Amino acid sequence: MRFTDTTPEAALPKGVKDFLPLKAAKGEFLQQQLRQVFSAWGFRPVIPPQLEFVDELDKSLGDDLRERAFRFDDRQSGRLVAFPPDMTPQVARIVATRMKEAPLPLRLCYSGRVLRHAEEQAGKDRDIFQTGVELIGLDSPEADAEMIAMAVECLSAVGAQQFTIDIGQVDFFRGVMDGVPLTGILAGQVAAAIDRKDSSELQTLLQTIDIDDRTREEILALPRLFGGCDVLNIAEKTVRNDRSRRALDNLSHVLKTLDVYGVLEHITLDLGELRGLNYHTGITFQGFLPGIGRAVCSGGRYDNLTEQYGYQVPATGFTFDVLNLLFALDKNLDKQVSLGSDALIFASGSDLQPAQKLAQVLRRQGLSVARDIYDRSLQEAREYARKVNFNTLLVVNGEQDEVQIIRLNDATEEFKPYNALLTEQFKI
Amino acid sequence: MRFTDTTPEAALPKGVKDFLPLKAAKGEFLQQQLRQVFSAWGFRPVIPPQLEFVDELDKSLGDDLRERAFRFDDRQSGRLVAFPPDMTPQVARIVATRMKEAPLPLRLCYSGRVLRHAEEQAGKDRDIFQTGVELIGLDSPEADAEMIAMAVECLSAVGAQQFTIDIGQVDFFRGVMDGVPLTGILAGQVAAAIDRKDSSELQTLLQTIDIDDRTREEILALPRLFGGCDVLNIAEKTVRNDRSRRALDNLSHVLKTLDVYGVLEHITLDLGELRGLNYHTGITFQGFLPGIGRAVCSGGRYDNLTEQYGYQVPATGFTFDVLNLLFALDKNLDKQVSLGSDALIFASGSDLQPAQKLAQVLRRQGLSVARDIYDRSLQEAREYARKVNFNTLLVVNGEQDEVQIIRLNDATEEFKPYNALLTEQFKI
Repeated sequence: MRFTDTTPEAALPKGVKDFLPLKAAKGEFLQQQLRQVFSAWGFRPVIPPQLEFVDELDKSLGDDLRERAFRFDDRQSGRLVAFPPDMTPQVARIVATRMKEAPLPLRLCYSGRVLRHAEEQAGKDRDIFQTGVELIGLDSPEADAEMIAMAVECLSAVGAQQFTIDIGQVDFFRGVMDGVPLTGILAGQVAAAIDRKDSSELQTLLQTIDIDDRTREEILALPRLFGGCDVLNIAEKTVRNDRSRRALDNLSHVLKTLDVYGVLEHITLDLGELRGLNYHTGITFQGFLPGIGRAVCSGGRYDNLTEQYGYQVPATGFTFDVLNLLFALDKNLDKQVSLGSDALIFASGSDLQPAQKLAQVLRRQGLSVARDIYDRSLQEAREYARKVNFNTLLVVNGEQDEVQIIRLNDATEEFKPYNALLTEQFKI
Repeated sequence: MRFTDTTPEAALPKGVKDFLPLKAAKGEFLQQQLRQVFSAWGFRPVIPPQLEFVDELDKSLGDDLRERAFRFDDRQSGRLVAFPPDMTPQVARIVATRMKEAPLPLRLCYSGRVLRHAEEQAGKDRDIFQTGVELIGLDSPEADAEMIAMAVECLSAVGAQQFTIDIGQVDFFRGVMDGVPLTGILAGQVAAAIDRKDSSELQTLLQTIDIDDRTREEILALPRLFGGCDVLNIAEKTVRNDRSRRALDNLSHVLKTLDVYGVLEHITLDLGELRGLNYHTGITFQGFLPGIGRAVCSGGRYDNLTEQYGYQVPATGFTFDVLNLLFALDKNLDKQVSLGSDALIFASGSDLQPAQKLAQVLRRQGLSVARDIYDRSLQEAREYARKVNFNTLLVVNGEQDEVQIIRLNDATEEFKPYNALLTEQFKI
């Protein structure tokens, strides 16, 4: 059973989708796999609300997300409320206001949907499915490494074969930029040039700024500081300010721990990477699968977020964008996610009891079973069962009779006593 | 590890909540149990979007829900959009616009959150968790009976012991009221009096209306038409209009099928029940648990809903209000939902590899395992493990040494060779 996946243009606002059964089942499968990894690593769920006061949310949202939140007057309170555009600030608020007495570290996970405004042209999702974790109370690089190792395990768990975790360190960049007189448009242009790795544009931009040669050299190095783990050595030689060097020490410690986890093969570095959210304060990372430019997961350290709600505690975490992951793995998941059901039961007489009893018994055996309620012929029921992917069609006459078992994939048929089906495990 | 469940008044808008780990785990457990029943009955998931155009949504929302939807101008399209207040109209739209070619019947399920404005004083939830099913394409009473039998099985699956499914038939009521010249405020007052089962108030109200004696008698009978299945016989004697009698025939057929399902012990009838949503057209029902006045599930037939989107097909369904269910079963779930994790691993040396390798092996065995990253003493780690409900603390020195296994519930200790733990299934 397949349905076209193109909604009539007018039916839905841009950036949101209907998920029909196959896609929905795949999305749910991904969420379950991720949650299983989270649980195996000792993380426990929280569920943040779908509405927050804007002034509470704004305490921790950076400019980027604040701008993209759906906000409006709350009829009930008269205050400005918003649909959260990101769950990490919500978890930070929950930890700071409601779990202050909890022994640290806290390992929390969540799975939910957030809404974000998106640029009209970009065709980006506005209805975003986030499934992620937060590790609260640890400032050690080992905690960052745990997040990255978990992200790797998550990607393996959902069946990704080739993938890359691209690590940045926002404090390295901030160290380079400390004291550089950059504001407004120019700051944005410089950041964009670094992000695009456009060295010549960057050079032109820097000519207009009054900075010493050492700083200029450090900034110009940024677009080149990406690739394998040897980027760390190059960066150590190029950059001499204290803040950046501390960031490199931190990164080096994270990489050593990742080596112990045995996941270095998936790691790349990008020290000119600025895609971290405003609230990040150290290591950041993003996960990529071949053939899709958008990250499937992203995370990093945010040591100042809970403080906005009156509780200072270091933290790190990551979240999967389940729709990006689904987009990247869609085809692969055909093997793992099936829309088939096990048995359709067709009652040929007017006595429904035997059919219903059999359905109940098979369901208790763990099978998925529907009863054909339509007033139609066996031939029509068989056609229906085939079209909607039932494995078998069971024709029940009564408790004394035999049940006809029609296997739909190879059209074989057999008969079994009704009572035998009630007691034996049914083999599909 | 317990946390207080009272949010500081100012921190969250009314009608929404933070769910801390224990409550969140219970809520997720309930959703999973319901989804397992849905899957066993052959239902397949759809995921509707979090934003809809108001004019599309309004086609199928009744006045009650239309009034309660969060709506606002969409910055992106310039059109009025809304956060859906109910998922059934969304599923109806999806079926009508995107699954028209699907063979009938269609069995669909969903699990999500909707938002509704609520009266300020009532302290009602605005952030509502709906987990439900829709059975599309069958007008047979057996389809209604399937919904009710499934609701019973769901309640059993989540461990409810005593519960009631209260069945109404909106067409019975409509038959009685056909041709009664009732509009505006008076109509509301009459409905409210019937709903409160206030016969004397109803009598007073009816004196102001010009109706024949038979109709008056039928209306006055409504508040008394609730109780066990014998209500059906009383109603058959009292009410003589054709539409109501057809509704009673339909109800009688549903009850016969429910008898075959063996669930009649849970059934009550209420023919003065008007709580069905505006879009209901036949059988409606609500599930109740002892000690909570709000329904934990509700459903019914809605034969005109998909038609609003250009595809006429009969349908029935139901949804669980997961928060009401959680509220009703909270205490019972303590037995089924635990927040404990299996093992905390404490690495006493500087070599992390043995500890991480052991964690990985135990996770692959299906256990939930965290590594204690804090720089702290064994005594402190032990205190932490006890407080946050780890079953065991494993102290790892190295690959050659023995691992100390501390069971925290009875404080017993033993030692095992590191390598034995890597190969044997660990017993908690």
